[in-house]
Amino acid sequence: MRVGIVGGSGYAGGELIRLLLRHPQSELSLVTSQRYASEYLYMIHPNLRGQTQVKFSPLNNEEVVKKCDVVFLATPHGVSKGFVKDLLERGLKIIDLSADFRLKDPNDYPKWYGWEHPCPELLRESVFGLPELHRKEMRNAPLIACVGCMSGASILGIAPIIKTGIVDLEHISLDAKIGSSGGGSEPTPANHHTERFGGIRPYQVVGHRHIAEIEQELSILANKQIHVGFTPHALDIARGILITAQLWLNKKVENAEVWKAYRDTYGTEPFIHIVKYKKGLYQLPDPKVIIGTNYVDIGFELDDHIPRLVVFSAIDNIVKGAAGQAVQCWNASNGWDEKVGLDLISMH
Amino acid sequence: MRVGIVGGSGYAGGELIRLLLRHPQSELSLVTSQRYASEYLYMIHPNLRGQTQVKFSPLNNEEVVKKCDVVFLATPHGVSKGFVKDLLERGLKIIDLSADFRLKDPNDYPKWYGWEHPCPELLRESVFGLPELHRKEMRNAPLIACVGCMSGASILGIAPIIKTGIVDLEHISLDAKIGSSGGGSEPTPANHHTERFGGIRPYQVVGHRHIAEIEQELSILANKQIHVGFTPHALDIARGILITAQLWLNKKVENAEVWKAYRDTYGTEPFIHIVKYKKGLYQLPDPKVIIGTNYVDIGFELDDHIPRLVVFSAIDNIVKGAAGQAVQCWNASNGWDEKVGLDLISMH
Amino acid sequence: MRVGIVGGSGYAGGELIRLLLRHPQSELSLVTSQRYASEYLYMIHPNLRGQTQVKFSPLNNEEVVKKCDVVFLATPHGVSKGFVKDLLERGLKIIDLSADFRLKDPNDYPKWYGWEHPCPELLRESVFGLPELHRKEMRNAPLIACVGCMSGASILGIAPIIKTGIVDLEHISLDAKIGSSGGGSEPTPANHHTERFGGIRPYQVVGHRHIAEIEQELSILANKQIHVGFTPHALDIARGILITAQLWLNKKVENAEVWKAYRDTYGTEPFIHIVKYKKGLYQLPDPKVIIGTNYVDIGFELDDHIPRLVVFSAIDNIVKGAAGQAVQCWNASNGWDEKVGLDLISMH
Amino acid sequence: MRVGIVGGSGYAGGELIRLLLRHPQSELSLVTSQRYASEYLYMIHPNLRGQTQVKFSPLNNEEVVKKCDVVFLATPHGVSKGFVKDLLERGLKIIDLSADFRLKDPNDYPKWYGWEHPCPELLRESVFGLPELHRKEMRNAPLIACVGCMSGASILGIAPIIKTGIVDLEHISLDAKIGSSGGGSEPTPANHHTERFGGIRPYQVVGHRHIAEIEQELSILANKQIHVGFTPHALDIARGILITAQLWLNKKVENAEVWKAYRDTYGTEPFIHIVKYKKGLYQLPDPKVIIGTNYVDIGFELDDHIPRLVVFSAIDNIVKGAAGQAVQCWNASNGWDEKVGLDLISMH
Repeated sequence: MRVGIVGGSGYAGGELIRLLLRHPQSELSLVTSQRYASEYLYMIHPNLRGQTQVKFSPLNNEEVVKKCDVVFLATPHGVSKGFVKDLLERGLKIIDLSADFRLKDPNDYPKWYGWEHPCPELLRESVFGLPELHRKEMRNAPLIACVGCMSGASILGIAPIIKTGIVDLEHISLDAKIGSSGGGSEPTPANHHTERFGGIRPYQVVGHRHIAEIEQELSILANKQIHVGFTPHALDIARGILITAQLWLNKKVENAEVWKAYRDTYGTEPFIHIVKYKKGLYQLPDPKVIIGTNYVDIGFELDDHIPRLVVFSAIDNIVKGAAGQAVQCWNASNGWDEKVGLDLISMH
Repeated sequence: MRVGIVGGSGYAGGELIRLLLRHPQSELSLVTSQRYASEYLYMIHPNLRGQTQVKFSPLNNEEVVKKCDVVFLATPHGVSKGFVKDLLERGLKIIDLSADFRLKDPNDYPKWYGWEHPCPELLRESVFGLPELHRKEMRNAPLIACVGCMSGASILGIAPIIKTGIVDLEHISLDAKIGSSGGGSEPTPANHHTERFGGIRPYQVVGHRHIAEIEQELSILANKQIHVGFTPHALDIARGILITAQLWLNKKVENAEVWKAYRDTYGTEPFIHIVKYKKGLYQLPDPKVIIGTNYVDIGFELDDHIPRLVVFSAIDNIVKGAAGQAVQCWNASNGWDEKVGLDLISMH
Repeated sequence: MRVGIVGGSGYAGGELIRLLLRHPQSELSLVTSQRYASEYLYMIHPNLRGQTQVKFSPLNNEEVVKKCDVVFLATPHGVSKGFVKDLLERGLKIIDLSADFRLKDPNDYPKWYGWEHPCPELLRESVFGLPELHRKEMRNAPLIACVGCMSGASILGIAPIIKTGIVDLEHISLDAKIGSSGGGSEPTPANHHTERFGGIRPYQVVGHRHIAEIEQELSILANKQIHVGFTPHALDIARGILITAQLWLNKKVENAEVWKAYRDTYGTEPFIHIVKYKKGLYQLPDPKVIIGTNYVDIGFELDDHIPRLVVFSAIDNIVKGAAGQAVQCWNASNGWDEKVGLDLISMH
Repeated sequence: MRVGIVGGSGYAGGELIRLLLRHPQSELSLVTSQRYASEYLYMIHPNLRGQTQVKFSPLNNEEVVKKCDVVFLATPHGVSKGFVKDLLERGLKIIDLSADFRLKDPNDYPKWYGWEHPCPELLRESVFGLPELHRKEMRNAPLIACVGCMSGASILGIAPIIKTGIVDLEHISLDAKIGSSGGGSEPTPANHHTERFGGIRPYQVVGHRHIAEIEQELSILANKQIHVGFTPHALDIARGILITAQLWLNKKVENAEVWKAYRDTYGTEPFIHIVKYKKGLYQLPDPKVIIGTNYVDIGFELDDHIPRLVVFSAIDNIVKGAAGQAVQCWNASNGWDEKVGLDLISMH
């Protein structure tokens, strides 16, 4: 299939190239970048040296339509809403990594993003790009809007347990920790090496946009409106997210009950490991051991001191948090094995 | 005053040496280490090269009594309980950095530490070593048992707000992030560089011993038994703790009310900054900017989406979390200005 | 082919597992570890969760002979010399990642390693495991002794230029920088996270054992005895080696001449990139962009101020510096495409 | 004395503030920053919270003249040459941290910096700001031009040995490793956290401007024109420089001879430690253990394999490499104890 990537110079774009170059169904026909048009991809993504001679192209809808069957959009938030409708009408299949079509309620865009959505009718049509929850709807869907990185990890981490009814839904605390690649490839004070080195920096500690997605998806699962406390922190690492959820329990709960919830929901999931060991250094999820892969490591611990369940969810923010998720969605939408092109092993 | 340090080869011991070498009231008369006896201090703490020609001595109570007026104990948990009574009876003043005399209820030692306390009568006598809460009791106290690192940061972070009555005391979530020096100077798999590099590792996620101290102190403040959810994470940095507290509110609260609580409690504290800015990169606490000092940076943010208050508390785990705290306690117990010997500025 | 790994719990052993699990010619039949016998591989190498249900076995030559056609030895230096002869005589093919059979002159073992070699006759028979220089000898060789990590990067970096005659062979300076995984998986003070964090530590700055290999191989190329200055440094990263060679030139040299030397020698090499760009951030080799792969990035710069050529050589010390090298040697010895099982792309 | 800092928002400027706030002779009367004029210093340098209520002022020569007796210039290269003459003529004492007055030969500016020097007569008058070599000239000097960070570490590391005559002056190799703060506080791709994390990046590997200073100073010492090979590398740490010099020897040399050279030259230097131990983890210089201080740790090792001497020199690039150096120069120029305001201890 002829595949295009719009916005290929960022970290998610670069990872899409890495994955799609080895995807057996993908023929990479177009990678756009306004800034780097006519540069070799490997000049911006040095890991691609020797892997491809493709160059960046400027963005041009005519070219996209002519050269691609499917197009992955790795543009900044607020960009794709301007041209997705046009591409859809010309018959392209679209997998959007940005937030522009993730939220179902048009009112959420002014509230969380500060702009009115120009094509609210597409919000109903777009499929929320989290295969573990929405893979059936993905089949042949023309528009998939992939979940965000911290939101995806949060949702996957606690979805099974939200459904059980054992959790106090009024007091859900999510603490997120993330590496610098989550901030994009553009130099900024927040990601200046000297400032980030050795630090632990809270940011957007209330009102982070990913809350909208988390609440949207958890509310569907709980069949009632859910609100969450969500606070992210910027760490001195490049890749990886760990979500720590502190959940309060409505009743006395046994380990077996929690295990069952996760097994029932994720028993056959190709990318989810339940990580809960009694010995060794990595008894609970640590993103370090899945960097570069599409895995989600989820673990939990019951507190026997107070009625509390702690859940951990680890991903590589650029793979399962962006490019890998998108490829998995593409696989699901075509009815292919979701592991195609994503069967990667991380390093110790 | 003649000062001794028992257990001077670890990170807290090393930091005590650094601080006491420049403390105008301190004459460093004895530093013990079983393993490194007769080595120069600077052979283990290379930052001390050119600063002192003192050597480590083996531990010997007779020597301690003969050479010291006050002794700081930087021994592993479970060690000092074996000799503190003897030293007290011989008239020494003791500042213990370990956990052996922190808990007031003798039943807490079997529960949290796994051993019966050999001298429970001393638990009543010892002063909990957190000057912001207990400085009056410290005056001339013979035994001060300094608070732990993550517990101290947690308590200071939320103490003012616990007292207000605005917080739902049943759902206190504390998420701790800490650098590797918190794990001590002994090589271990958990602190092996290759394993820790690039990771975010949850550990002792339920049942961490610092919970006992946090609950002890917060319960005093609230005048009722309090329980907290507390979960620490090991980061790829060497020094620093950030505590993130997610608190649920009983009622609608304004910023001014929270500010007032912190100002009322900490308005004249020499080591507490309220860090809450509207611009710049460091709007909220980040331990990076106070490393090497005895400061506690505390900040907060009210959520306008849900009734939630997020509080952040940052310290250097080896200074305000250990050696600096101990020196501050010593100052307080003597009625000196608490900043003596601790008037340090960190680096950008 | 039935493949065994002796010494599978270290970092090189773990990486051999990662690579051989995806090598189409490999059937992983045995992985030994004395310490972790009967544990699942993934308990020690958490990146292997979900990838294999194999367990570690104790080392037992009978088992090795019965279950394997080829065996990779990832044992500490000084171990394999005790059993390689036995395994060879029983018909096994051996690829040794340790130093025990690398040096050709039996006198070099007492000199550099402090022990007499028990089977010096095998030193002539073993092939030095650096395919770029010795692939022809590898074909069907029963014993291949893979080059060390820093030595391999050093040799590959300057081999083409040594042969040209343009370099002053009396003043070769090699400066090595390496991540902590090079020190192995055993906790040590040198690799204690708190000690290594934020530092730049020279170690074994004269007399490092890799010098023996570098001089052995360069002397063959130069057809005269060569000595080198070689000084390594331990950095606060987990993986990667950068070798910086400062070479003094016998005569005025143009860029084209150096380019030609590298192209002539490495023009068809599957794992060598010549990295020398005029713009962008990664104009010269940086191991960061090839971590996880078997690539060697080599670059150079001519000084127009003095007759000096600077050469850079970057590898992943655990892949091209150990496990990947070994797999490449195995491929070469069987006449397979050397990229089989090694066709990996790193991350940006 | 009334002290001003021109260019106070960068890392060197921030460190000048930190040091001068505690310098007993300093009354900080003016800190300029065009970009941050009217902001509190602590808004840019969060380590200064609670330390000062001073704000940044715009640069205005009249103000400088009116408010200051001495002014430290921490401006980018090429800026101070435009106003130093004016300030000198109005009677100010100037300590310039930039390169504008370091080089003695006016021809070196077009060659290394690309511009003609507007006041070449001042180059003779300015004192090269490295007290260990030029403290006598500093006494009452109106203009001191502080040495660069990597150049200062290089010069101090090998100066004593250059003078001995035992070194082959034709083949001096200097390999520099530096943290990100050396690149300044302005966000750039090179210092983007995600790009720098986990890497080892060579940069400006030939023709680095610091070569001009190194050669200038070493040539004076050797009494002949010296050229050096100098190649820097950007590491994933924030602060610190390690210089590794590989020197070739003209004759057989004993340890005692090298020790003597260093003792003779640096025996009474307040900021130089000779670091050469036979045991322990920090046997040779590592900048980690002197971060935040004005120390230079210098160590060496003789190779008994070849006629080679390896010298290591470690500094904090922002202290002894910039702000601390400047304060030491100021102390020297006034005839004060050079340790005044610089008597700091680093952390383990």
